Amino acid sequence: MTALATLKPQHFLWEVADRIGTVRLNRPDRKNPLTFESYAELRDLFRDLVYASDVDVVVFASNGGNFCSGGDVHDIIGPLIGLPMKELLAFTRMTGDLVKAMIGCGKPIIAAVDGVAVGAGAIIAMASDLRLATPAAKCAFLFTRVGLAGCDMGACAMLPRIIGQGRAAELLYTGRTMRAEEGERWGFWNALHAPEALEAEAMALARSLAAGPTFAHSMTKTQLNHEWNMGLEQAIEAEAQAQAICMQTRDFERAYRAFVAKEKPVFAGD
Amino acid sequence: MTALATLKPQHFLWEVADRIGTVRLNRPDRKNPLTFESYAELRDLFRDLVYASDVDVVVFASNGGNFCSGGDVHDIIGPLIGLPMKELLAFTRMTGDLVKAMIGCGKPIIAAVDGVAVGAGAIIAMASDLRLATPAAKCAFLFTRVGLAGCDMGACAMLPRIIGQGRAAELLYTGRTMRAEEGERWGFWNALHAPEALEAEAMALARSLAAGPTFAHSMTKTQLNHEWNMGLEQAIEAEAQAQAICMQTRDFERAYRAFVAKEKPVFAGD
Amino acid sequence: MTALATLKPQHFLWEVADRIGTVRLNRPDRKNPLTFESYAELRDLFRDLVYASDVDVVVFASNGGNFCSGGDVHDIIGPLIGLPMKELLAFTRMTGDLVKAMIGCGKPIIAAVDGVAVGAGAIIAMASDLRLATPAAKCAFLFTRVGLAGCDMGACAMLPRIIGQGRAAELLYTGRTMRAEEGERWGFWNALHAPEALEAEAMALARSLAAGPTFAHSMTKTQLNHEWNMGLEQAIEAEAQAQAICMQTRDFERAYRAFVAKEKPVFAGD
Repeated sequence: MTALATLKPQHFLWEVADRIGTVRLNRPDRKNPLTFESYAELRDLFRDLVYASDVDVVVFASNGGNFCSGGDVHDIIGPLIGLPMKELLAFTRMTGDLVKAMIGCGKPIIAAVDGVAVGAGAIIAMASDLRLATPAAKCAFLFTRVGLAGCDMGACAMLPRIIGQGRAAELLYTGRTMRAEEGERWGFWNALHAPEALEAEAMALARSLAAGPTFAHSMTKTQLNHEWNMGLEQAIEAEAQAQAICMQTRDFERAYRAFVAKEKPVFAGD
Repeated sequence: MTALATLKPQHFLWEVADRIGTVRLNRPDRKNPLTFESYAELRDLFRDLVYASDVDVVVFASNGGNFCSGGDVHDIIGPLIGLPMKELLAFTRMTGDLVKAMIGCGKPIIAAVDGVAVGAGAIIAMASDLRLATPAAKCAFLFTRVGLAGCDMGACAMLPRIIGQGRAAELLYTGRTMRAEEGERWGFWNALHAPEALEAEAMALARSLAAGPTFAHSMTKTQLNHEWNMGLEQAIEAEAQAQAICMQTRDFERAYRAFVAKEKPVFAGD
Repeated sequence: MTALATLKPQHFLWEVADRIGTVRLNRPDRKNPLTFESYAELRDLFRDLVYASDVDVVVFASNGGNFCSGGDVHDIIGPLIGLPMKELLAFTRMTGDLVKAMIGCGKPIIAAVDGVAVGAGAIIAMASDLRLATPAAKCAFLFTRVGLAGCDMGACAMLPRIIGQGRAAELLYTGRTMRAEEGERWGFWNALHAPEALEAEAMALARSLAAGPTFAHSMTKTQLNHEWNMGLEQAIEAEAQAQAICMQTRDFERAYRAFVAKEKPVFAGD
């Protein structure tokens, strides 16, 4: 276990307060594109979060009115043209590794999306656990517009489970923008908030999760992902085991003691 | 095959009429909590339903304005505190066995939810095939509030398939109440009805299913659950086999004869 | 690779223009029922589409104000009564093979549904990639009304992923009609259009997909279906491979060159 509060990433902003880690990309003049370097450093951050001693919830925030404009055309797409397969696959695997790291980091991730979330930016929102946005947020899985397929970083698997197979197919084939009210109606966004309220709402939600029970929240995340393609019988047995583990935490006993004493439980994460 | 009409459960109400079995918990003064005993007896009921000769559809009804308040804090949660893993796992497996028994009972289950359906009560609604509720129904997967994870009795597998992965994540991480109109909008409730109409609507739906073709309905239930994590090719082959079996029932011929005679078919379940 | 423009099917209408193939059943006086012959010939068409040199997108259109009334009671259901299992299974496998062929044909399929789409007609809409309808469209998975189960041609696997498990269960158990506005709200229909606009809208959507990148669209279709029951890690690796393949297409380079030149890309499908 290591503290991440002192981490000083080179390619994005990072701060830790009250056991909540906030990450935001930092090229607001260009709507926060990703580069090879920020992809890799984000992947490393989420991998490190597994062992973080001081972070229980992550907020992936916007910056300067936008979330993320995806892989930069000049910094990423240009250099990919004409590469041999070995290097192309190394790149697509690295981007997929960011999603795998987000899924596997063991802490709930809340995306707070203002403005543009397109391409890999849409994927980062998709791969988060909870998603808040503003009414003007524009989300597009626009891979098709740069000549690529909708199957990027897990989109053909994950997007259909969030918004349904037919709606996902439309977004992935056409690359069109999902309007914010559509996204809320379809279950992509958990809620919409005015731009000036977005970050406060995301932090309030993050604080409510950081208040615990954090060990149990981590188990919820594990099971939401690991039961993805289990049979029903297997999923129910897996949950019997996972919940029995949670029943041996002190937080379970703390909740019971608080209930009996008619108090609000204070969880400690163990 | 055995008749279940004469069954006299000790821990809940049970009646059979017109091939419809109606179950309801019976501690309305406490909003119908579950106990170790009622969990086990419900599990046994749904296991017995596989072989029931006189029941084709089950209605899981409310009582005294509420559906089920979940595992009782005093009767269940208190005794679990400090138990060794072997006994905790025996408990979580028993609760999971209730869901497995509901899934495997071979008869469609209609939940008719008035008032509170929380914790294991929300799970019982979730594990039913069809769900009706009143506009004031409050459904919450509130395991997190007692220090536990959202992965209880199959929730991390089943809830995302019903309402979408993002909405399920929110309910399971936060434990918040899903309002009835949200639940209808999200596909959790099939329909909302006024409290005074709820049970009549549930019984009307039950009668329409009990009118048959009941063998085919049972096959529909089997396939909805067994194709959960099949590949598409495998699911299509599985349905070719299942439907070919149904084409050898007399009910299939009865429907054809009725159509030719311009009559309404009368199904007999074989 | 063979050109399909000259194909002259016996049991339905078929035309190819601008790399879009349009299929429509052709018994409008009876709302376009299917027969043994049209089932088989449709299956063969979609199998041939894998190798079509002149078709990139398929529109499955209505005719005479209706889409398809499903398997004809006189031509199909009557003859099935009393058949031995071997022949019943041969039939259900053939119908399933139509869905498998639609899924496997490698080109996006757009269903344009006016009027009735019931039984196998509802299945054809379900098995398409994108679905447009008119406000008066009536879609019903009415197998139960002819004494059969809802598990027909993949419905118990596919319908829940499109509209959610609870709504699919209702439609499959009851056989009731899904109203068009319900279908749009639930994600079955991607959009509703007035009858006089339906086909123009479907063709406009088809043209936008036929404008490419068609190789990438084909990969999107493959992955949407093949990741159906993969684990998340496996899906992400599968997409890393699939997208790396797309990065070696010339269309990827064409998109980049067009972006740099501030032009609209012209894709060529290779």
